[in-house]
Amino acid sequence: MNESKPEDRARAELLPRLGEIGLSNFAPYLMNRIMGRYNANIRQEMARAGLTTPKLRALAVLSVIDSLQISDLAVYAVVEQSTLSRALDQLATDGLIRRETDEKDSRVTRVAITEAGRAMFERLWPSMAAAYLQMFRGIPEEEQSKFVATLQKVLQNVRHHDF
Amino acid sequence: MNESKPEDRARAELLPRLGEIGLSNFAPYLMNRIMGRYNANIRQEMARAGLTTPKLRALAVLSVIDSLQISDLAVYAVVEQSTLSRALDQLATDGLIRRETDEKDSRVTRVAITEAGRAMFERLWPSMAAAYLQMFRGIPEEEQSKFVATLQKVLQNVRHHDF
Repeated sequence: MNESKPEDRARAELLPRLGEIGLSNFAPYLMNRIMGRYNANIRQEMARAGLTTPKLRALAVLSVIDSLQISDLAVYAVVEQSTLSRALDQLATDGLIRRETDEKDSRVTRVAITEAGRAMFERLWPSMAAAYLQMFRGIPEEEQSKFVATLQKVLQNVRHHDF
Repeated sequence: MNESKPEDRARAELLPRLGEIGLSNFAPYLMNRIMGRYNANIRQEMARAGLTTPKLRALAVLSVIDSLQISDLAVYAVVEQSTLSRALDQLATDGLIRRETDEKDSRVTRVAITEAGRAMFERLWPSMAAAYLQMFRGIPEEEQSKFVATLQKVLQNVRHHDF
């Protein structure tokens, strides 16, 4: 569990103002711009397939992790649980995911992707992959690896969960 | 103007599937998780101040760039223009921004922050700064600089505008 700590608050007092850092050196600004574009790039293909961002993210995560509790899926997919529940209702109606009772604890519901869901995600993957390759066009492999390593550290710093 | 090119599409065919890359090595996934957390971290302070994400982003950009056309502000703030217009209406009503006619072209409306708007942003900046410092806790200065340099390249690859 990582909260913004009192030390961060104290150090924040010493941080230069945004105008001094400059927008184009402020990592959260850059990441918001980049992800806004990435999400816009796949939105058209997504809409064509009748999906929304929460639905696509749920399918993407479930294509990689076999079976998840809804609360954990909400973290991985970065979707609020109430929004996710509605998205899962629709995905289940469309036969793209199925809900199943946990083998060890019958009070727990887990979610898994179906074959049709996997096929749907396969349909979307080329536009996600193209948007991803566009991001890193011309950036050497080694620089990409270092970038991802830093992203992993940053996620570790900010996340509230163990994954 | 950078679109996902046919080459990206062709290379996307050769890219391993998401399951092979792994979620935790997929940069767009990591950035979505990180920004979801960053935005959640400042949401409480933002709500307390009666602001929304579009309003805060508009104020942040205008605290750094003196005067902007609405279409350009929409790009910097990563907010759709219709959403931004509504946010600007409310910010203007609250006296936090003002609209002014462009000196050179009377058909063009520009937006600028007021003193009250600047004071409001100053009130929010400590929580933004703390969330920012939390992200980079324990990450050496040099690694941070390289990370920001890569982010700048990525933005250059994906952006549709010249800034």
